[in-house]
Amino acid sequence: MSKLVYSFGGGKAEGRGAMKELLGGKGANLAEMVNIGLPVPPGFTITTEVCSYFFAHGNQYPAELRKQVDAALALMSKRVGKNFGDPSNPLLVSVRSGAPASMPGMMDTILNLGLNDATAAGLAKLTADERFVMDAYRRLVTMYGDVVLGIARHKFDHELEATKQRLGLKFDNEVPAAELRKLVATFKAIVLRETGKPFPEDPVEQLWGAVGAVFGSWNNPRAIVYRRQYRIPEHWGTATNVQAMVFGNMGEDCATGVAFTRDPAAGEHRFFGEWLQNAQGEDVVAGIRTPLPLDRNAGGEKSLEAMMPECHRELVTFRDRLENHYRDMQDLEFTIEHGKLWMLQTRTGKRTGFAAARIAVEMQGEGLISKTEALMRVEPDHLNQLLQPVFDPNDRKKAVAEKRLVAKGLAAGPGGASGKAVFSAEAAEAYVARGEKVVLVRQETSPEDIRGMLAAQGILTARGGMTSHAALVARQMGKVCVTGCSDIVVDYATRSFGTPGGTVVREGDPIAIDGTLGEVMVGAIKTVPSEVQRVLITKTLKAEDAPVYRIFEKLLGWADEVRRLKVRTNADQPDQAAHAVAFGAEGIGLCRTEHMFFGEGKIGPMREMILADTTEERQKALDKLLPLQRADFTGIFLAMGPRPVTIRTLDPPLHEFLPHEEKATAEVAREMNVPPAKIADKVRQLHEFNPMLGHRGCRLGISYPEITAMQGRAILEAALDAREQGVEAHPEIMIPFVGHVRELQLQAQAVRDEVAKVFAERGKSIPYTVGTMIEIPRGALTADEVAGVAEFFSFGTNDLTQMCLGMSRDDSASFLGRYRELKIYERDPFETIDRIGVGMLMRIAVEKGRSAQPKLKVGICGEQGGDPASVEFCHMIGLDYVSCSPFRVPIARLAAAQAALREKKTPARLPAKKTPAKKTAGRGATPRRPAAQVRPRPARKAAKPAVKRTAKKPPAKKAPKKARR
Amino acid sequence: MSKLVYSFGGGKAEGRGAMKELLGGKGANLAEMVNIGLPVPPGFTITTEVCSYFFAHGNQYPAELRKQVDAALALMSKRVGKNFGDPSNPLLVSVRSGAPASMPGMMDTILNLGLNDATAAGLAKLTADERFVMDAYRRLVTMYGDVVLGIARHKFDHELEATKQRLGLKFDNEVPAAELRKLVATFKAIVLRETGKPFPEDPVEQLWGAVGAVFGSWNNPRAIVYRRQYRIPEHWGTATNVQAMVFGNMGEDCATGVAFTRDPAAGEHRFFGEWLQNAQGEDVVAGIRTPLPLDRNAGGEKSLEAMMPECHRELVTFRDRLENHYRDMQDLEFTIEHGKLWMLQTRTGKRTGFAAARIAVEMQGEGLISKTEALMRVEPDHLNQLLQPVFDPNDRKKAVAEKRLVAKGLAAGPGGASGKAVFSAEAAEAYVARGEKVVLVRQETSPEDIRGMLAAQGILTARGGMTSHAALVARQMGKVCVTGCSDIVVDYATRSFGTPGGTVVREGDPIAIDGTLGEVMVGAIKTVPSEVQRVLITKTLKAEDAPVYRIFEKLLGWADEVRRLKVRTNADQPDQAAHAVAFGAEGIGLCRTEHMFFGEGKIGPMREMILADTTEERQKALDKLLPLQRADFTGIFLAMGPRPVTIRTLDPPLHEFLPHEEKATAEVAREMNVPPAKIADKVRQLHEFNPMLGHRGCRLGISYPEITAMQGRAILEAALDAREQGVEAHPEIMIPFVGHVRELQLQAQAVRDEVAKVFAERGKSIPYTVGTMIEIPRGALTADEVAGVAEFFSFGTNDLTQMCLGMSRDDSASFLGRYRELKIYERDPFETIDRIGVGMLMRIAVEKGRSAQPKLKVGICGEQGGDPASVEFCHMIGLDYVSCSPFRVPIARLAAAQAALREKKTPARLPAKKTPAKKTAGRGATPRRPAAQVRPRPARKAAKPAVKRTAKKPPAKKAPKKARR
Repeated sequence: MSKLVYSFGGGKAEGRGAMKELLGGKGANLAEMVNIGLPVPPGFTITTEVCSYFFAHGNQYPAELRKQVDAALALMSKRVGKNFGDPSNPLLVSVRSGAPASMPGMMDTILNLGLNDATAAGLAKLTADERFVMDAYRRLVTMYGDVVLGIARHKFDHELEATKQRLGLKFDNEVPAAELRKLVATFKAIVLRETGKPFPEDPVEQLWGAVGAVFGSWNNPRAIVYRRQYRIPEHWGTATNVQAMVFGNMGEDCATGVAFTRDPAAGEHRFFGEWLQNAQGEDVVAGIRTPLPLDRNAGGEKSLEAMMPECHRELVTFRDRLENHYRDMQDLEFTIEHGKLWMLQTRTGKRTGFAAARIAVEMQGEGLISKTEALMRVEPDHLNQLLQPVFDPNDRKKAVAEKRLVAKGLAAGPGGASGKAVFSAEAAEAYVARGEKVVLVRQETSPEDIRGMLAAQGILTARGGMTSHAALVARQMGKVCVTGCSDIVVDYATRSFGTPGGTVVREGDPIAIDGTLGEVMVGAIKTVPSEVQRVLITKTLKAEDAPVYRIFEKLLGWADEVRRLKVRTNADQPDQAAHAVAFGAEGIGLCRTEHMFFGEGKIGPMREMILADTTEERQKALDKLLPLQRADFTGIFLAMGPRPVTIRTLDPPLHEFLPHEEKATAEVAREMNVPPAKIADKVRQLHEFNPMLGHRGCRLGISYPEITAMQGRAILEAALDAREQGVEAHPEIMIPFVGHVRELQLQAQAVRDEVAKVFAERGKSIPYTVGTMIEIPRGALTADEVAGVAEFFSFGTNDLTQMCLGMSRDDSASFLGRYRELKIYERDPFETIDRIGVGMLMRIAVEKGRSAQPKLKVGICGEQGGDPASVEFCHMIGLDYVSCSPFRVPIARLAAAQAALREKKTPARLPAKKTPAKKTAGRGATPRRPAAQVRPRPARKAAKPAVKRTAKKPPAKKAPKKARR
Repeated sequence: MSKLVYSFGGGKAEGRGAMKELLGGKGANLAEMVNIGLPVPPGFTITTEVCSYFFAHGNQYPAELRKQVDAALALMSKRVGKNFGDPSNPLLVSVRSGAPASMPGMMDTILNLGLNDATAAGLAKLTADERFVMDAYRRLVTMYGDVVLGIARHKFDHELEATKQRLGLKFDNEVPAAELRKLVATFKAIVLRETGKPFPEDPVEQLWGAVGAVFGSWNNPRAIVYRRQYRIPEHWGTATNVQAMVFGNMGEDCATGVAFTRDPAAGEHRFFGEWLQNAQGEDVVAGIRTPLPLDRNAGGEKSLEAMMPECHRELVTFRDRLENHYRDMQDLEFTIEHGKLWMLQTRTGKRTGFAAARIAVEMQGEGLISKTEALMRVEPDHLNQLLQPVFDPNDRKKAVAEKRLVAKGLAAGPGGASGKAVFSAEAAEAYVARGEKVVLVRQETSPEDIRGMLAAQGILTARGGMTSHAALVARQMGKVCVTGCSDIVVDYATRSFGTPGGTVVREGDPIAIDGTLGEVMVGAIKTVPSEVQRVLITKTLKAEDAPVYRIFEKLLGWADEVRRLKVRTNADQPDQAAHAVAFGAEGIGLCRTEHMFFGEGKIGPMREMILADTTEERQKALDKLLPLQRADFTGIFLAMGPRPVTIRTLDPPLHEFLPHEEKATAEVAREMNVPPAKIADKVRQLHEFNPMLGHRGCRLGISYPEITAMQGRAILEAALDAREQGVEAHPEIMIPFVGHVRELQLQAQAVRDEVAKVFAERGKSIPYTVGTMIEIPRGALTADEVAGVAEFFSFGTNDLTQMCLGMSRDDSASFLGRYRELKIYERDPFETIDRIGVGMLMRIAVEKGRSAQPKLKVGICGEQGGDPASVEFCHMIGLDYVSCSPFRVPIARLAAAQAALREKKTPARLPAKKTPAKKTAGRGATPRRPAAQVRPRPARKAAKPAVKRTAKKPPAKKAPKKARR
């Protein structure tokens, strides 16, 4: 740990863009911007290793740090031509966090460090602008008080608001210098009162306090929640950036702004930014004032283009240079100080699923990235957004006619969301816990609101623009969002908001927000299927009228070209099956016959069968069920055409089909014409202490082989019927819950014996297979034996997880939350396959199964089959297919493609149109572990895999960093 | 399959004793007896391979069989000098089954084959004894009708009884020739009536019918039950022995008898047999007539010694020769025909656990066998019998005084048993299913009674001797048994028996039988501990007055010399711990703390803790529990002395400590002074769908680390207290239900942090370890990670089995019976470790655990830890210890010794005193599989392992036999 501090500025940088792990995203990009010739205020970055050291050593810094910081500070002073703490020519600095993965708003920032009474006076003299200096000073005391000293921010804000009220002012920048000076004094008094110590006047003490607070903020609860949500490993740590201040708030020739190189909500290819005159950067992001557009055609005379044309022109140049350099949509920050444009940050921009797909497809079209890169740019889960419903245009029209459209704001997160209005994160979580849907309404959002945003259907803010905290986070979460809706007046005290028309919406009132149009309506609005659904499922829209669908189609077409895994669906009904096929399903991986038993007219015979006292009675009931099951299966075969259909024989414990409440029992008894006591007795008799490990799965079929025989008959008769209707049905019969090869032998025999009769009766035979679920650890461990009988395997990872981990899915809620907090299981093992434990059983099963039967077809039908990380794992261990719910089929297709691309280890990047090939030479993709070593890698921010996995890494990593992988 | 038939007789035999697998036990021993020069009626054996072929080919014989049988029949005829079916000089034969493992009474036998009207007439002429011939003829028709033709035996017996009643006769042998001739005609009429076909007159047809019936009887339900009970593989099959008849019923110079070379009940070294004059062998075994003793000093003038002194002398010689040859206690059958002694069978004699231990120890003392052989001669489970209670002498005296001693019989199975009298196997099973204990009372027993005998505490028969079916089977099962109690009159019709004193005992009346004294009492009798217990536990008996104890001690002393596995006990109370130490426990492998919580004064604070709403409240309740737990642990440490004590932290789900019924809830609420609703709410809140996979084990400690801390404190404070009392306590703290190393890390830390405080407070520290249960598949699969933290492993095979097999122990009853019938699991996996599945997880865990920590101590504390087959498996996979309930400690010690001896693969046999070394040369022990291949071997009859595993096997096996292993 020799080099702890990396300097940049004056056209030179010690770091570079590829050093994100060491310098954090912000620090690496500052260095990179310097390297490509953009104007960046000088500064230095303290590495993430210092952060790790800090936590590993009881919040102590490495001994060498102070010297290196001193040297970097001296170099920065030289570059800027000012001195830290020098009243005659004071250097002011910002201190910001910068983690390897972008965590917007989660880490704390302090500006204007270096101000004290002496330097403030000196600076006032130098700038001849006391108002500016005092404004900076009061901001410093506020931020320092809040972030370093832990004083509630509202204590400062309250004083500022009181001053504004007293003076009748609306905006902070209207408060005069003298009042600001008084405020600084008041703020310092607050500090003394709250902490018992005066505000530190020593700039160096300020600096170290700020550095410690930045590192410390890595472990604040908000950061922890965010990391958990976005699966960012805790051990990465954050870097700290110390940078010379430039001021957007020194007068009317100053400004600050943020921009996206493309529209982050819809993905449109246009420069998209916001600015504020005479303001500091935090003012834009924090949403205190609603900012103005950059371009004239969006903001007219209030635009940057109109008001500062030179700076605007330069900024547009920088935008092109950055996008061509990074070859991805960038989120950038700038400040104009007395007409001079400074770049403060660039990073890969967060975007919605809509935008991610569109930008990826369009950049490929522009020749900026390859198809492969385009595929890697879209997080599979984000495709969900393209499938989510939007507001029904007719219902919206009706709402407008009824004058329920009460306000308009910025369309910050596309889609339509209805829910009860709530005004705090706590309320949002409480309503949701009761099963209600909510829209979170805030003046503006801050990191404290993250939990509430997660819980809500949508977010509505009164302040803040397209790049405000609310907008950024909502887009990343894929939430519907309307920001900057200055029409509404939010009152937290009464938990309500008022609209220009006089409507008052109180907590619990239903509202609807349209994040595509920026509309706010009272009352709920009906939704209609997404464009993709209307094209593929309801066929109410033509592809040529559906630009979102065309992007979807193109992207998934590329995915299909590269993926090796097949994607099937779990479907029990013909309509589900048809939808899945429309979404690209290549077969059914799991058709649960028991769902059919609950259908009309079927539960009666099913109950008769369960209540039967003799095999004869049972057979009578089964004879009634046979034609019903056959019809169900025929429907499925017709929907699936020639695609394989895996049908599982009866699985759940029989008591699930009987009523358990007294009233229901009486009713069923009447219907079935049996004494209620008979039903109650049967329920008692079937009661189990641990039904998950009880009389279910093939154990039922072994106890009552006639059930299995009936199902085998129904399946093959249906397949023959379908063939008579011209559909080449391919049935695969799957025996569940096999732990011992003999169970499968017996059940397979029961099926084959009955099917032989069917073939004889119909005078025709067709191919079919009998395989098994691998869902009991013993089945996996003895897969070589099982594969001696099974014609295919399908992993039932729900049960396999329950048994491998000894964890009942239905009961784990009481401790799994705590387990995730304690990092025992970082991800819910029922959502994402536990690669170490369950994954080991899966690998054993694949290996042993194929040792006995080299061409054994192996799939997965557990619910993790639609989870991208699990799809990747299934690819790695050589499965033939994954199977998931119909709506996750597109996600699985993309995830399978990404898994295949990652495995290839080729530089997932073609020479870009505008980037000389030389620039990327020697920066090949980081070698990946071979597929056999399938320990889960800590997933770096999945939203920008291309950056992680392509040319941005140094070819060799330093040893101490190794632990991070 | 070239040689299907092996001949013997006339001093020559094609087979030999070592060929049991091929010729069955009976056939091999007949050949062996011929080889060692004993007089055996000539005959031949059809091999077990023919039986296997028969079942594999739809009850067809191999083509070559008839020719070989014809040849063997011809050779036998030549040796005997008679011809089969020749009226002028007819040869009569017996056909008997003979499986590789002895299955007394389970297989069917037919005697006197070859008789028809013509040969009967011829034989009557030849023997001048029509009564004898007609007696043989009516037996043939009866047996053939029963066994081959399936006619209920009582139909024949009824006619015989009617004749005897009409003539006023008591015994069968009093029925005159003319009546017997009539009976033969009547019996043949029965055959015609019942089957529609006449009794076959053709002797060859008779022979083949009998052979088919013998093979077929291998799969009769009784045989299947027996095989399941004694774990005899179904694929072995039976051989069929065809042998020239010799007759014990041809007059007063004829006799038949059975004998044991030593007392099979108590093991005493004395010749022990019974005989009947003028009778066939089946008469003795079937218990129809109560037979007479062999020796004069046991039977006086009715003894064989008195009545046929020459034959007796010769028999005693044969007895010595057989015991020296076989070097084990033999069960032999003989017949005397006109004064000539013939040996019909010898086999290793079944014996009680008492006898097995005594014979083994005494034969070692006599130099007949080695210590190693002695150890292998006792089935570990049989040691139970030496520990079982016997009747309290005072209570017995009281019963005698009250004139409740109502009958006396033969002491056929030692021990005392009280229970309700029942008169059929069905009744026995029905009572036992209701949780009641029964004594099965029968006129005599037959194989149909096996299930009832299994269910009963003891067996009482009115007829039959020490070698009757009842006595043999009871001894093998270790049941208390009184046979030949001719004092009682059993009436099945009224389900009662009468005694000489006029007492009538009806079904359901309590009776008591003493199998050591042969006494029958009405009413129950109290029991007292066994001799071993009185010496070791209650210390009410001195070793020198306790011969059974001395044998026990000697045998287990030898076991301790050779075993490698340590044996610990599962004990939660100081008295249990002390008993276990007396039985040889070398530590505690599992002390369940939760059992202590149910103790006096503890459940209250425990419930307070569960109902606590805050950590503070919980801590208050824990503070109350601490001194109680500490006192418990101190008691255990004092009892265990310097032996290691593994204490498991809290494991069961918390709801188990709360009342579930409304009334109990109200009561507890009153006691605890809380509203009942609070308790009910908590119960609801704690309810789980699958509690086995729920919030339990270390999950509790992770949710409430203060519980773990309290327990860690209590354990170490107790250990320090014990040390202050001079006992060097060795605590080992075991964290249950670990599936992820991080769980263990957190819990181990909670323990270590608290223990550090204890050490600081007490100013003293002692060594202790923190380890884990391996009971979740994931824990086993990631054992390398877990072993990075754990200081020891202990397999919790109950839970491991549940999760590996996906089978809830509490719920498996509904299908496990069927599973065993279908041979899915041949043994209950909760009794005996499933070596393939669960065993694989165990091997993985041992291997991975030791890869991370080569000296890792690994034990087992699941209930299979006291099961001999499981102990063997634990030895094979290299465990350090097994832990079982206190009373199974001796069993585990012996099982561990046997496992070690089997592993050694050395010929487990020293040259025997009277057997020339040459005789055994070249017949070394069969090589065993290496320990790594731990697939369960089909266990050959475990009662005689020495025979199986020493010099009785041919050094190389023929290829076709290989499948049998």
